[in-house]
Amino acid sequence: MDLLRSQERFSEREAMVRRFEAVRKATEDLCLPLTHEDFVISVTDDTSPPKWHLAHTTWFFENFVLKKIDPQYEPFRNEFHFLFNSYYKSLGYYLPKVKRGVLSRPTVHEVQEYRRAITKEVMMEVMRLSDEKFKEIKECLELGIQHEQQHQELLLMDIKRNFYENPIRPRYHPDHSHGPYESFDVKWHNLASGLAKIGVDRNTHEFAFDNEKDLHNQWIESCMLSSHLVTNDEFLSFIEDGGYDNPLLWLSDGWDVKEREKWSAPLYWERDGQNWWSFTLGGMMPLDLAAPVVHVSFYEAMAFAHWKGCRLPTEFEWEVAARSEPSECTFLEDGYFEPEPSRDDHELYSQIHGSVWEWTQSAYLPYPRYEKFQHGLAEYNEKFMCNQFVLRGGSSITPRSHYRVTYRNFYYPHMRWQYSGIRLAKDLA
Amino acid sequence: MDLLRSQERFSEREAMVRRFEAVRKATEDLCLPLTHEDFVISVTDDTSPPKWHLAHTTWFFENFVLKKIDPQYEPFRNEFHFLFNSYYKSLGYYLPKVKRGVLSRPTVHEVQEYRRAITKEVMMEVMRLSDEKFKEIKECLELGIQHEQQHQELLLMDIKRNFYENPIRPRYHPDHSHGPYESFDVKWHNLASGLAKIGVDRNTHEFAFDNEKDLHNQWIESCMLSSHLVTNDEFLSFIEDGGYDNPLLWLSDGWDVKEREKWSAPLYWERDGQNWWSFTLGGMMPLDLAAPVVHVSFYEAMAFAHWKGCRLPTEFEWEVAARSEPSECTFLEDGYFEPEPSRDDHELYSQIHGSVWEWTQSAYLPYPRYEKFQHGLAEYNEKFMCNQFVLRGGSSITPRSHYRVTYRNFYYPHMRWQYSGIRLAKDLA
Amino acid sequence: MDLLRSQERFSEREAMVRRFEAVRKATEDLCLPLTHEDFVISVTDDTSPPKWHLAHTTWFFENFVLKKIDPQYEPFRNEFHFLFNSYYKSLGYYLPKVKRGVLSRPTVHEVQEYRRAITKEVMMEVMRLSDEKFKEIKECLELGIQHEQQHQELLLMDIKRNFYENPIRPRYHPDHSHGPYESFDVKWHNLASGLAKIGVDRNTHEFAFDNEKDLHNQWIESCMLSSHLVTNDEFLSFIEDGGYDNPLLWLSDGWDVKEREKWSAPLYWERDGQNWWSFTLGGMMPLDLAAPVVHVSFYEAMAFAHWKGCRLPTEFEWEVAARSEPSECTFLEDGYFEPEPSRDDHELYSQIHGSVWEWTQSAYLPYPRYEKFQHGLAEYNEKFMCNQFVLRGGSSITPRSHYRVTYRNFYYPHMRWQYSGIRLAKDLA
Amino acid sequence: MDLLRSQERFSEREAMVRRFEAVRKATEDLCLPLTHEDFVISVTDDTSPPKWHLAHTTWFFENFVLKKIDPQYEPFRNEFHFLFNSYYKSLGYYLPKVKRGVLSRPTVHEVQEYRRAITKEVMMEVMRLSDEKFKEIKECLELGIQHEQQHQELLLMDIKRNFYENPIRPRYHPDHSHGPYESFDVKWHNLASGLAKIGVDRNTHEFAFDNEKDLHNQWIESCMLSSHLVTNDEFLSFIEDGGYDNPLLWLSDGWDVKEREKWSAPLYWERDGQNWWSFTLGGMMPLDLAAPVVHVSFYEAMAFAHWKGCRLPTEFEWEVAARSEPSECTFLEDGYFEPEPSRDDHELYSQIHGSVWEWTQSAYLPYPRYEKFQHGLAEYNEKFMCNQFVLRGGSSITPRSHYRVTYRNFYYPHMRWQYSGIRLAKDLA
Ligand SMILES: [Fe+3]
Ligand SMILES: [Fe+3]
Ligand SMILES: [Fe+3]
Ligand SMILES: [Fe+3]
Repeated sequence: MDLLRSQERFSEREAMVRRFEAVRKATEDLCLPLTHEDFVISVTDDTSPPKWHLAHTTWFFENFVLKKIDPQYEPFRNEFHFLFNSYYKSLGYYLPKVKRGVLSRPTVHEVQEYRRAITKEVMMEVMRLSDEKFKEIKECLELGIQHEQQHQELLLMDIKRNFYENPIRPRYHPDHSHGPYESFDVKWHNLASGLAKIGVDRNTHEFAFDNEKDLHNQWIESCMLSSHLVTNDEFLSFIEDGGYDNPLLWLSDGWDVKEREKWSAPLYWERDGQNWWSFTLGGMMPLDLAAPVVHVSFYEAMAFAHWKGCRLPTEFEWEVAARSEPSECTFLEDGYFEPEPSRDDHELYSQIHGSVWEWTQSAYLPYPRYEKFQHGLAEYNEKFMCNQFVLRGGSSITPRSHYRVTYRNFYYPHMRWQYSGIRLAKDLA
Repeated sequence: MDLLRSQERFSEREAMVRRFEAVRKATEDLCLPLTHEDFVISVTDDTSPPKWHLAHTTWFFENFVLKKIDPQYEPFRNEFHFLFNSYYKSLGYYLPKVKRGVLSRPTVHEVQEYRRAITKEVMMEVMRLSDEKFKEIKECLELGIQHEQQHQELLLMDIKRNFYENPIRPRYHPDHSHGPYESFDVKWHNLASGLAKIGVDRNTHEFAFDNEKDLHNQWIESCMLSSHLVTNDEFLSFIEDGGYDNPLLWLSDGWDVKEREKWSAPLYWERDGQNWWSFTLGGMMPLDLAAPVVHVSFYEAMAFAHWKGCRLPTEFEWEVAARSEPSECTFLEDGYFEPEPSRDDHELYSQIHGSVWEWTQSAYLPYPRYEKFQHGLAEYNEKFMCNQFVLRGGSSITPRSHYRVTYRNFYYPHMRWQYSGIRLAKDLA
Repeated sequence: MDLLRSQERFSEREAMVRRFEAVRKATEDLCLPLTHEDFVISVTDDTSPPKWHLAHTTWFFENFVLKKIDPQYEPFRNEFHFLFNSYYKSLGYYLPKVKRGVLSRPTVHEVQEYRRAITKEVMMEVMRLSDEKFKEIKECLELGIQHEQQHQELLLMDIKRNFYENPIRPRYHPDHSHGPYESFDVKWHNLASGLAKIGVDRNTHEFAFDNEKDLHNQWIESCMLSSHLVTNDEFLSFIEDGGYDNPLLWLSDGWDVKEREKWSAPLYWERDGQNWWSFTLGGMMPLDLAAPVVHVSFYEAMAFAHWKGCRLPTEFEWEVAARSEPSECTFLEDGYFEPEPSRDDHELYSQIHGSVWEWTQSAYLPYPRYEKFQHGLAEYNEKFMCNQFVLRGGSSITPRSHYRVTYRNFYYPHMRWQYSGIRLAKDLA
Repeated sequence: MDLLRSQERFSEREAMVRRFEAVRKATEDLCLPLTHEDFVISVTDDTSPPKWHLAHTTWFFENFVLKKIDPQYEPFRNEFHFLFNSYYKSLGYYLPKVKRGVLSRPTVHEVQEYRRAITKEVMMEVMRLSDEKFKEIKECLELGIQHEQQHQELLLMDIKRNFYENPIRPRYHPDHSHGPYESFDVKWHNLASGLAKIGVDRNTHEFAFDNEKDLHNQWIESCMLSSHLVTNDEFLSFIEDGGYDNPLLWLSDGWDVKEREKWSAPLYWERDGQNWWSFTLGGMMPLDLAAPVVHVSFYEAMAFAHWKGCRLPTEFEWEVAARSEPSECTFLEDGYFEPEPSRDDHELYSQIHGSVWEWTQSAYLPYPRYEKFQHGLAEYNEKFMCNQFVLRGGSSITPRSHYRVTYRNFYYPHMRWQYSGIRLAKDLA
């Protein structure tokens, strides 16, 4: 029987290693449309160069897998330890984020070589571990895979942002169009008041981030959530009604950011006379009025909700609603890279899984009985639980296999280069 | 009977007018120790000059009481409408906050004259209103009184901060000392899990701010709260243990602020060789080790809690605990102006009412069914519900008559010129 | 004979002490129109509060006269040494300039008391010195008097700038008007090429600043200088011709400053519909078209000259021209406080002495054989000989007794709160 | 005879075209050691990416030669007009300088193609011009060539600066060493007082920049100049004597920059225990004590001179001295890329031509009768004549064929990524 269990474990391990290999390759495939030059640049303090994402995810496996397997492990190149650490202060000094985009070396080829070497080494090392040792290491390997998937989304976000800065407006992938869409009626679905179970049980065997745990009670007050995401069409009405010029609709901090940054529309929107365009991973495209609005900050989402006489859902309300919806829509694997209009294939909540991350009115804070990751990974999430807001639901550039209904994404309220959109809620009197 | 009710109302009205008069006078009395020059300055972007507080609270009554009574009301001086509006965008442009401290005119005498005129006019006008009209105006008058009391606390905070900037270190009031204190044992009191009622019923006849409403359910997970506030002595141990140099204890944003601002102790602390001093409204004083630590930011409170293996309470846990404690300690009326050491006069939670505002781990967000104030006062609270954290419990410079157990104070996590301290909590496994 | 010489010296000394007393009083008289509050504020990084000027000039006498007389001299108050040092690094740390405007203490009364005490002590100490000792100290005393006169001009500049920041726009002195002026024809006077003697002989017995020495040769190329200062009328034509919007007229650094600061007219000008006003020490006044333009930066002066097809004179050309003009116009003693229109009372160059400081195209650099001041006063001028431009000719707020034809004033090219105007020059083909 | 003159002119033209071709190729050859990635980055606000230099110099020929030849000329690619204009406001909006380093497109290959196309077109078009037309265009072509040579120096400066930012410290070319050098004795050579002729006659047929004209008189006061440049060894003594910590040696603005930028040695110097290293185009190298100090700002040069009891020469003194020295040392064509120690091959002034640019104490201002360039090139130099200081003498990365004794280089006093060094001067009593 022990033999049997060992074999079972071996196949679990093999499956995991294959998944690791596939995820590594998927990241690299996302870079196929890039020129050497595209790998190098980073245009804001929030973005990173593609080259850095490729190297940093590799560094993660070196530090949290290979070094765990063998404490004597010698890094591939010593300077990479400094260059590709993102923010783990427990691992020593690291390159300040703003410097990531001013390094021409290591070259793209060197980084690709680094990736190949570490991918190979991780696979080899993991396969030859004892069962006991694999059990110890498994959690870190899983986290490394999940981490790499997170960076796939970041990679695309950053490519889009970097390209947009260039007046030439390069295209990441050929553009495309979809057929004419039928209009839909927005419906409001009630959520009854009562106790709800939120989050993930800390004793689960499935992977979940520390910030999704522990499963806990949350009292829900009765309210309504919209069946559909806010569309570009609706958001355009807000703009045309002077939404960006009316301070009474805005949070005080939001108004200040808007004034300072001179926002008058979502990120990537541009007006050309009477016509609106938006920059996409397929280049500049006429604004798709039927598609959900995307690339709005929390502040814009709040101002829009205010203008509509509504509010944003809490992340708890959202989770209760989302658990009731079986349908899914665009994720990264669909290769569309931008949100599409809603189709008539849902039960209650259209596009609640996939398409765009939905801003909630919940601050990003720890759940009851929160425990940070072990193994030097304490810095993964915990230290960011301040000043950010939770987004839920995944987006058209989120890997499907990385998504869960309990997944908590988080951004600062002024940020909008992530694929963030709006679903409205209302109190029941 | 109508006459009787009218008389009753008259006495209610008279009582309110007398309270108004007393609160106005109390503000002025707080300024008695100031020189003319002290009224003019403001040393940070968060502070205001004393003169401005005197005028702004007066402006509030002009705009929200006198103008409501008589829409034809002509302002005392036209330019004051611009100069003393704090942030009400619906009332037009206003002087940017950073400019408050660079105005020498109107002079202190002119501002005092302005106060006297408006105080007198409000009293006279309110007394001669019809009953119907008084009923309409009552809420705004009450809010004006509460607003003035809020500014009493701000006034003292700002005087302390302004004085501290001066290398001469002026004193606001003569210093003082208290006898030797007996040590106490910190106890941990359990909170049982279950549904709690939080906040204030929106139909109450008592005054409460919009942000305290509506009364709603909140599920409490079982946990423990400390019987005592963290003392200067305990916080000193954190410093001596390298708490300010260990990034693993800090929120990421907090670490960045700390580094940028070069914090190595709470605001107002200074080391002189082996001895610690702190600046108080009584001037530089040897650090009172037995007194609660005060003037810490949210970031410092979180780092300290982390170091202790504890956490901060949520505002809901705090409210449940505080409702069970009948004792009160230092408020503004006590004239002590600084937190005092704990005495043996409480049941469960020492100094939970008064002494220092206690940081909670709750972001400042609207309660369910939140409704902002009417009458042009929408901007009073709502637009600030973002990026701030809730503090509870009042302080030694909060007017006692302004305080309630449901009172939600809020500051940005980097702020520390308010009287903010720490009470710890722990999860029950 | 020794006795006689001693008596002569005594009367020289007495004369100097009386002059000292008069200059001290003159500074105080300039403050008579101020309220207590006006003394405290400073609204830019370049200005200082009036109170500070009063104290700093006093500190100068303490440090460079009283301490020189008696090395054991105990300062009036220890903390003043830190508070009222402007920038003498050799004397230890000092209050950063930006903090000057946030100190309410010492109060105005304390500063006035400080002035009285030091004035009295300087007079007493100087009178009872031996002849030898007086000879040693004389230079420092003279410099202290000249320094105090410099600060009289700065005091008025700063009062004007501080008052302007206040939307109430206070007046320093009652306004006034002058009769109708006759128009004049601008003439161009030739300067022949040849060697000129510039500056002040280092062996002179008259007072002059280190930066005016040594007398040296300067080759002048033949050119023409305008008989008149540029008027507000002429400058208005530049504005109306789009001068502020044409980058080809501007120095590159000037254009950047103009864009950043959003300049569209000289400092203190404001348009009200079709009418232009300017802020003066007499309050807001209709723009006096016949008066010389004032409060322009070097950049604006250069752009204007460029627009006119002219250039600014070098400080050497200016000095040669100015030596040939005997007439003088408005200085501080005239009590007018603003430049007046030109009158028909000059020979070649109207208002070349007094009225406004005239920008030259000469960078502020040391003359040949330059030697900095001795006695700890090396920092007086030398360390500022970089990045500034020379202005010549005195202004309507410069004390007449402080002015010489060789006087070199200097400001950074972006500055314009000093009384700076324009006289044009042209090359002779 | 007309035919003959035409032929002569043709060979002049041919020679010029061949020179054009050679200079274009030289620029490209300087890029041979670069990877694709190296072409993209720019690490400061002053630097540009190599790719940009390649494209901008090409753009210059498009706009100032091809468009002059044919006003209907269609640009190679429309967007390049915006992307590669450096600062010519008369040619329309252009990409802000800080954005140059965040563009991945056009790629290096596209830029190289752009260069090839324009080089070919310029050659073809120039060769087929009529004589009259060539005469018109000649000046612009010459300026284009000179401009390209200026950018060769900038290109190397920027590569060095960009590489230095990378902790990996890449090498541009293999390092090298030179034999042991004999020490030398510094001598001081007198300059007699008298009138000197400075600059270039505006009627010359030789090329010179507008800022070198017109030839004019300048009175020189008697003084001495050092026979040698200040060495690293001497500068090290300044450092070891606390030169960077003594405010009395520094200009006020210089001290502020030094404090803000935390300078404690010249740019590219690094201390490793007891040993000093410096970053060169050959990578990190032990500091060559015998070589001239390089990469010092004007402020550091002034502080050093002050410490030595000397001063910097004026640009006029320098020009008089340099005219008397026939020997030359390292220029770009020598392929050494860094300054070398002095050899015994000069008459009076070692390394006065080549090696390092020598700071002068002269502000960068127009000469008498200055006239800016015509043909839309007014913005080439004139608008920068403010706030900068003149450097003279060329450097080891200046093309020899681009250098003249009258050449005026200029940088802001805080800049030090150019190859700037120090030659001292002294007044004669
Ligand atoms: Fe990461
Ligand atoms: Fe207020
Ligand atoms: Fe001074
Ligand atoms: Fe250029």
